[in-house]
Amino acid sequence: MDIKKYMNEIGKNASAAARELNRANTGQKNTALLAMADAIESRRTELLAANKKDMDAGKESGLDDALLDRLELNDERIAGMAEGIRQIVALADPVGEITNLEYRPSGIQVGKMRVPLGVIGIIYESRPNVTADAAALCLKSGNAAILRGGSEALFSNQAIAQCIHDGLDKAGLVKTTVQVIEITDRAAVGELITMQDYVDVIVPRGGKGLIERISADARVPVIKHLHGVCHVYIDDDADLDKATKVAFNAKTQRYGTCNTMETLLVSRVVAADVLPGLGKLYQQEGVELRGCLLTQAILEGIKEATDEDWDTEYLAPILSIRVVEGFDEAVEHIHQHGSGHTESIMTENINKARQFLQEVDSSSVMINTSTRFADGFEYGLGAEIGISTDKIHVRGPVGLEGLTSQKYIVIGDGHIRQ
Amino acid sequence: MDIKKYMNEIGKNASAAARELNRANTGQKNTALLAMADAIESRRTELLAANKKDMDAGKESGLDDALLDRLELNDERIAGMAEGIRQIVALADPVGEITNLEYRPSGIQVGKMRVPLGVIGIIYESRPNVTADAAALCLKSGNAAILRGGSEALFSNQAIAQCIHDGLDKAGLVKTTVQVIEITDRAAVGELITMQDYVDVIVPRGGKGLIERISADARVPVIKHLHGVCHVYIDDDADLDKATKVAFNAKTQRYGTCNTMETLLVSRVVAADVLPGLGKLYQQEGVELRGCLLTQAILEGIKEATDEDWDTEYLAPILSIRVVEGFDEAVEHIHQHGSGHTESIMTENINKARQFLQEVDSSSVMINTSTRFADGFEYGLGAEIGISTDKIHVRGPVGLEGLTSQKYIVIGDGHIRQ
Repeated sequence: MDIKKYMNEIGKNASAAARELNRANTGQKNTALLAMADAIESRRTELLAANKKDMDAGKESGLDDALLDRLELNDERIAGMAEGIRQIVALADPVGEITNLEYRPSGIQVGKMRVPLGVIGIIYESRPNVTADAAALCLKSGNAAILRGGSEALFSNQAIAQCIHDGLDKAGLVKTTVQVIEITDRAAVGELITMQDYVDVIVPRGGKGLIERISADARVPVIKHLHGVCHVYIDDDADLDKATKVAFNAKTQRYGTCNTMETLLVSRVVAADVLPGLGKLYQQEGVELRGCLLTQAILEGIKEATDEDWDTEYLAPILSIRVVEGFDEAVEHIHQHGSGHTESIMTENINKARQFLQEVDSSSVMINTSTRFADGFEYGLGAEIGISTDKIHVRGPVGLEGLTSQKYIVIGDGHIRQ
Repeated sequence: MDIKKYMNEIGKNASAAARELNRANTGQKNTALLAMADAIESRRTELLAANKKDMDAGKESGLDDALLDRLELNDERIAGMAEGIRQIVALADPVGEITNLEYRPSGIQVGKMRVPLGVIGIIYESRPNVTADAAALCLKSGNAAILRGGSEALFSNQAIAQCIHDGLDKAGLVKTTVQVIEITDRAAVGELITMQDYVDVIVPRGGKGLIERISADARVPVIKHLHGVCHVYIDDDADLDKATKVAFNAKTQRYGTCNTMETLLVSRVVAADVLPGLGKLYQQEGVELRGCLLTQAILEGIKEATDEDWDTEYLAPILSIRVVEGFDEAVEHIHQHGSGHTESIMTENINKARQFLQEVDSSSVMINTSTRFADGFEYGLGAEIGISTDKIHVRGPVGLEGLTSQKYIVIGDGHIRQ
């Protein structure tokens, strides 16, 4: 099979579909989305059968339990997919919004109009629900989508694609508005991320390895969600009760998410007051603690944190703890070891809170708040396609607006430049 | 000389300077800018002497007159540089602006804060005033700058760098906030555009060749200003007097700029009414006309426009003209041949105006306005570092805001996620 030709055809179709979609109105897009959600529910038996094929093949090829869990569809997850799409229907359409339309001294009116990016390529791993989520977010934001899921989820993804196409059909939109790549050869990804003529942006969702590989090879812009080495810093002026509650929640509310705290920084001034109680809570919860020498002096018997620990996203019940001289050393540690995802300061001092907001260069910077709040739903975006740790284009949770661009619009009445 | 090591040192210094600059307030940045402008005026004799060295070398090596003209500094141009910097002082500081800080149902407040990108690398050709402009725009937007001008302007650029460093000194900012690369080896550019650890974005300013080369090789994001193949479409419902005025202005007000019209599209319905008069105006002005067969039937004796003409940015007194069936064919022509820069429709019909704004995918889309207005000053941005034809990050004229990013800020009072 000629993969270059196959992908080129997909790109060309997506590009044409994007132009058609740009003419569709909000009602038409919502009709398609609602019909997709209905199709996902009404084709439940087919989805489960397709998923069983993937699960059987996965077990046979020895996928580990965590991967199999992510791959599995069941009644609840299918209902969740449909519900997720309906929530996107309820969100405001970002496309076409005109802002700051103002008169200039020359007499022309200049403003900005929000527009789709065009064609978005999404590359993801095992979870089949991403197929539905990503298609719905792209459609609502007016973008044609090219979806490339993991080969282990191929049958599930094809069955979901069928539901998506049902929905597009109902609304009179072409099926190529959302295309699911059906070949599992990795060369298809290589083509997708280099088709500058047809693809406007790539969104990879998956492990650090996948994202680094794609970023290195892509010739199309990439919205990347790299890893989250998130910090909470307990300042001299923290309310230690609040600090204890937040630091405990930031680590233990869920271990496997990118906004989970991985390193706790504590000012020397309050370390002896706050760490013994907090350490006990973590240990009761089964969290393994690793500390610097000063931490080890307070929390006896814990392992030493190595240089590598400070740079590690555990995604597991492990926490590294470092006692710092104060605010400046905490900010410096975050600069050296953070991944630019989410950091929070616990302090009652407004000047230090203000300084933390200014000096810490992360996609989310928080005061007296658990890092676990860094999330599209919690921020009011409704849904997200990932959390960008880039500074370019979009930063933090990426919702509908992050999948759009703006263009200038100018309205005159025969105005010429002097 | 070890160029990799040299550039690495520059990158590291820029990165450190960017962190310091992020702590500087608006007053400090403005103090530096005003002192730079003063230094440019007071060091006028030095600037002229340095520029003379470049001009002499340029003449000797056979630079053409256009290049020599761009390279030359004189009293007026020096005054212009100083004035440009003072205008940037007058612009509002984009950094630190907090928008949309709103309460969420959980009780946390979520908003966005505008922040610098960090380190910006600017690669440009002969005009030495870019050194001052770019340094001033980067400084005001809180970014450290690494400037790489053309080798033919090296002495001029170094002399301007001296003025910039005077200004930084006066405001207590480190000199590495703005660094001018002093080696002319091309390998330095290769390093600059791949130093992902130190450089946040590259802005190339120059010809299409330079920009394409840099985009192809860069591993750092590039804000590109590609070419402008701009169109004016005269619709059936145009006011033909306005259309004549605007189409004439869009081509002839200046030939060498990217927002100059290169192709005129005219609806078949009005072609015979508008083209004879307009054609005469162009010809009186010395503009060479090239047309499709229908245009040639109306404007006898003009050259035929070839397929290549429709894709060409002339930057010269040449215009290609095509008669189209109507609105749809005009939009299709723009889609096929435009460069996504600036397009304008002449029509009195509000529906077609509205449709043109929606369907044309360019960084500026205009109604009844000369394309020559697509410009940072005309749009009220104050100054621009270029006009982006990308859809990612920033589109259209790039002013201070385009050189910044945003981060989420979250304020709670011990809030934890349930």
